[in-house]
Parts: sequence; C-alpha cells; structure tokens
Amino acid sequence: MRYLVAFILIYLVLGCSKEEPPQKDKSAIEDPQQQFEWKLVTSWPKNFPGLGTAPEKFASLVERMSSDRLKIKVFGAGQLVPAFEVFDAVSQGISEMGHGASYYWTGKAEETVFFTSVPFGLNAQEINGWLHYGGGLALWRELYEPFNLIPFAGGNTGVQMAGWFNREINSMEDLKGLKMRIPGLGGEVITRAGGTSVTMPGNELYTSMQTGVIDATEWVGPYNDLALGFHQVAKYYYYPGWHEPGAMLEFIVNTDAFERLPDDLQAIVEVATRAVNQDMLDEYTAKNNQALSELIQKHGVKVRKLPEPVLSELSKLSNEVIKEISSRNDLSSRIAESVADFKEHSMAYHFISEEAYYEARRVLSD
Amino acid sequence: MRYLVAFILIYLVLGCSKEEPPQKDKSAIEDPQQQFEWKLVTSWPKNFPGLGTAPEKFASLVERMSSDRLKIKVFGAGQLVPAFEVFDAVSQGISEMGHGASYYWTGKAEETVFFTSVPFGLNAQEINGWLHYGGGLALWRELYEPFNLIPFAGGNTGVQMAGWFNREINSMEDLKGLKMRIPGLGGEVITRAGGTSVTMPGNELYTSMQTGVIDATEWVGPYNDLALGFHQVAKYYYYPGWHEPGAMLEFIVNTDAFERLPDDLQAIVEVATRAVNQDMLDEYTAKNNQALSELIQKHGVKVRKLPEPVLSELSKLSNEVIKEISSRNDLSSRIAESVADFKEHSMAYHFISEEAYYEARRVLSD
Repeated sequence: MRYLVAFILIYLVLGCSKEEPPQKDKSAIEDPQQQFEWKLVTSWPKNFPGLGTAPEKFASLVERMSSDRLKIKVFGAGQLVPAFEVFDAVSQGISEMGHGASYYWTGKAEETVFFTSVPFGLNAQEINGWLHYGGGLALWRELYEPFNLIPFAGGNTGVQMAGWFNREINSMEDLKGLKMRIPGLGGEVITRAGGTSVTMPGNELYTSMQTGVIDATEWVGPYNDLALGFHQVAKYYYYPGWHEPGAMLEFIVNTDAFERLPDDLQAIVEVATRAVNQDMLDEYTAKNNQALSELIQKHGVKVRKLPEPVLSELSKLSNEVIKEISSRNDLSSRIAESVADFKEHSMAYHFISEEAYYEARRVLSD
Repeated sequence: MRYLVAFILIYLVLGCSKEEPPQKDKSAIEDPQQQFEWKLVTSWPKNFPGLGTAPEKFASLVERMSSDRLKIKVFGAGQLVPAFEVFDAVSQGISEMGHGASYYWTGKAEETVFFTSVPFGLNAQEINGWLHYGGGLALWRELYEPFNLIPFAGGNTGVQMAGWFNREINSMEDLKGLKMRIPGLGGEVITRAGGTSVTMPGNELYTSMQTGVIDATEWVGPYNDLALGFHQVAKYYYYPGWHEPGAMLEFIVNTDAFERLPDDLQAIVEVATRAVNQDMLDEYTAKNNQALSELIQKHGVKVRKLPEPVLSELSKLSNEVIKEISSRNDLSSRIAESVADFKEHSMAYHFISEEAYYEARRVLSD
C-alpha cells in the first residue's frame, strides 16, 4: 500500500508535467545499420526464476536476431528504478522498455487489472486467445496510449495456487481476522470477507509467516513457492487459485523509442515478446510439475481444497469488486464487457474440451 | 493408407540413397547482407483457416524481421509436392522448409506420433512444456537428425472433438462395425474396438458422411468443423476428444539450408516458429469458442458426451497400442518414457490447478 501511495504522489508530481517527446531522428529509418541501445527495467529481482529470466531471454533473442543492432540492458528491480516505478520510467523515457505486470498500475487506471488476471477470470490459454484474437490487445493499447506506452503480453505463470495458510479454512468464518499477503482484487475480496489484506515483497514473506505477522500468503505456484521455502513455515497449501487464474505479465515499450526503430527491428521486438510470452508458460508448466511432486513427496506438504461454499462466497465478492471497476468510464466498461463475453464463450467451449479432457484422463487413470 | 504405401516405396527407393549434402557456401556467412529465397511446402490447402494461415504468417514475420533478406514462398498441398510428401521434399532439399504434422510420417518412424498427439496424452499446454522444458525437443531432433531435418513446434489446435456421428454411442457395442474417418493411433484403437478406420482428405468427408460411406468422422474442432458443414450431415457431435488432446503441428527445416544461414537469420527462423506456435493456439481458442456457440445456437447441434465405460475401454486399447510403439528401439523407449513421466507429473499438478480451476469456476456460475 505504501508503494501505491508513493506511486500516486510520483504520478501527480511527474506524470502530469509530461516532457516534450524527443524529436524523431529520421536518419534512423534511413540508415538500416544504425545501432540502438535500450534499457529494460523490471519489477523483479535480477534473474528471479521465471519472472526475471524472461526479460533476459527477450534481450538475448533480440540481440541475436538483430546482429546486435538493438542491444538491450536488463535491470533488476531497484537497480535503476524501484519495482513499482517501471511504468513511469518507461512512460517518461527514462528507460525504453519495461517488464512487469499491468495490475501494479491500478493507481493509474483500475482497469489495468484486466490485463493481468481477475478473480474467477480467464486462464492462460484464454487470456492469450482474448488478447490476440478477441480484441483484448487493441483495448490494452487504447488504455496505455495516453501514457506514451505500447504493451505486449510478457509471459504467464498459469493458474496460481490459493496460497499457504497456518489456519484451516473450513468456512467463511475462518477468513474473519485472517491476515493474508494478497495483492490486487484478491486482496480487496479478502478484506470484504472480513480478513486483512497485506501487500509486501516476496523476500519478507518467509519471516512474516514464521513470526506470525501474517497468517497466510499467496505467491505464485509450486516452482516459485518451493524456492522461497514456505513449506517450512506454513501448515497447509490450498487450491484452487481463485484470485489469479492465469497471471499475464507485460512488456511495455516507450512509444517514441519504438517509433524510432526501423520496421525490421520493430518486428523483431514484437515477435520476441510473443515467443517469450509462450516460453514462460512452458517453463512454469514443466517446473511446477516437478516442484509440486517435491513439495508433497520430499517435504510432506498437505495440499487442501478450499470448500465449495467458501469459493462460492469469494466468487460473489469478486463479482461485486469487478462490477465496481467496470463502470468507472467508457473504456473500463468496454474492457469489462469484452472480457465477460470472452469468458462466457470460453467456459462453454472449455467445458466440453479442456476441462472434460482433464477429467476423463484423470478418472480413467484412477 | 495408399499414401502410406506410396510413402514407404518412395522412402525405400529414395530415402536410403541419400545424396551428398551440398557444399556449404562459406561466403554466405561472411556477407551479412546476402539474400536467401526459400520454399515452404505444406500439408494443407493454401491458406486453409488456422493450419494453412500459420505458415503464411511465419513467412511474413521472417520477411519483416530480416528486411527481406530471407524470402519464403509458401506452397499449398499439391502445388509443389503432395500433402504427404512434405517430409521427403524437405529432407531431400527440394524445399528448404515444410509445415505439417509429425504423425503423418509414421511410415518413417512410428514414434513420430509422440510429437503430434497420442490418445489420452498431453494437451497443448503440457506438450509445449514437455517440448521446451521437459526434454522433448532434444528427442525430436535426435529422431529427425538422420533425415537431415530440424523440427520446431508449429502450432496447436487444442483438444480436438471426438467427432461427428450418425450413430449414438452408448456402449462399446456401438463401435462394432462403425466406419469412421480417424487417422493415426486413434484409428488403430477404433479398429481394435471392432470398427473400421478410414483415412481420407477433409474435402471428401462431407459427401462420405452424407451418402453413408462412413458413419462417423473426426476432424479438428468447432472452428474447422463448422466450415466443412458437418452439422448438416451428422446427427451428434461427441466430446471429449480422447484421441488428439493437443495436436501439435510442426515446422521442419532442411539442416543444410539452415546451416547456410548466418546466425541472425537462424535466430529469426527459430523465434518466428515459436511465435506462430502460440499464435495458432490463440486463434483456435478464440474461434472455437465462437464456432461452438454458432453450432449450438444457430444450427441446433446436439452435443453428447462419450459414456465413461466407453472412454475407459478406449483408454485401455490406447495404452496397448502406445506400449507396442514404445518398445521398438532404444530411441522409441526413451521418447515414450519421457512423455509418460511428464504426463504423470502434469496430471498431478493440473488436477489441483487448471482442472480444479475450470471446475470451480463452472460450478459457481451454474
């Protein structure tokens, strides 16, 4: 929350006094061999597994494809700007590019959340379909255009876990008074359910769980959770993740910087983001598989399912929260309607395809 | 089947008398502005929705990224070589590149089927994870290396439908005597269940269903099925697709042609295949959603679920068939073991993530 406040202040001070965009250097387009050097600031610790290695891969692909005509230096959170100032830094041209998550910028516009993940919303396969073939990307670009930014999908973690708990969750009563690290709309839902939602960086979570400062925390999924050692300080690992069913990351590019690139380098940037977008989900799929097995078999983790009446109440509260965001202005209404329509059709189709297949395969192997 | 026989003959005549690979032109690597013109032959009608538009997109991305230094001309099936001769054409260097499906080449090596889809195997998200982070791609390259080919993932249709039937399927009895268009291992399973599996191209299926030459056909999913008009000639649309839970397409590149490219163009080819691999799944996800809705609401299609005892028998027969392929040689054993291991871990993880989420979201919205 303190980040959010700092954020709003920075925005009020800096964001509104937008500098003149630099003059476009037309010679750039005329000299096909011109070299470019870009900075890429991120919201993650340098080389953090999955989230932080994705922008490194992006930079390396772009450099290979461009024969080093576009060199990209990647910065971890805090190295050039803090984690939650990536949006402003790229918007203002301090850095040409950024990697983070759209829902970190709800201080700018609440509807950014639709471009990461909303409770009971689209999963990874669906949000990619919506973005690239359901009108999502055009809406996202419209939302970011006033900030002089062009967004691209930047990876996906898949369905996240509901989190680590030191309290059994058998009914809504058990959420009352629960202190849980859970950001975004999920946090708002937990608050409405009578809990207290806390926002804190990943590196403080282990100690906070151990000392009882918080009773529960969500993070990502088995791969990243195992690395942080939550199984040593929490009693139960709950599923299914209802609050972030397919968290999409983002690449953002400063519009002026992008327009200064010749067409081939623009294409290289765009196609590399698309490749990395898939690559991250591939990595999470494979590594979550392995990590879950290790958590259960080696560390004896107790995996529990949230009871249906609890999920049902969380779903009602989520709908309330989403409805409030969806009616702020014309653009938020159009985004919310587009997502809702895509979700309705996806649910109908995936009921007879992906879901039915998962179920059939599992039942037969029992 | 006639293709398969023709195939084996062509292979015996040509495949074994492999020509000397052309001498590498070292000057290519030294002149960074050298132009290349490639042919890309495909197993699909030119611009066939989804399957056929993917290689066109690939060519256009490569041309933009390379500033036309690598130009790629895409050929529909039959324009340069027939649909089922893509593998040989690229292997022999008649064409530098191809787009098709690995399981068309079971005449070369039965285990190619693992790189498209096997009954009750991996879905799209899983096969991408296995390929890129589970050892799959290295095994695929080992399998294709003797043919002078480098394979890349080339798109995915998602879970396919079980197909269109003019006979209700209530028990295994109903499969006896069933004439069904179903290729690959699925076809072998239907044969073992007492039916007759038929292989015929897509453009003959409508008439064959209409005139009763066949009783049933699988094709892809709502998007492609609607276009072929099966709802006009079939009574029931069955799910879940058990035989191709995540059909992966392939790009293949002639190894000599690839090695003649400088490093930047090699990277451009590789990254463009990765982007198109995801793009096709995005397109199928969005368009299947829409098409299913149209089939049900506009055309009154009756969607039916295969009964669990039938799925259970099909699963047993599938395991038999896969087991036979899995013990042909050292490489087939290693591929089968790698897939089986990845499937086991995926099932455990997706049970508490993707599947649990699909179920929770659906139940709550009922």
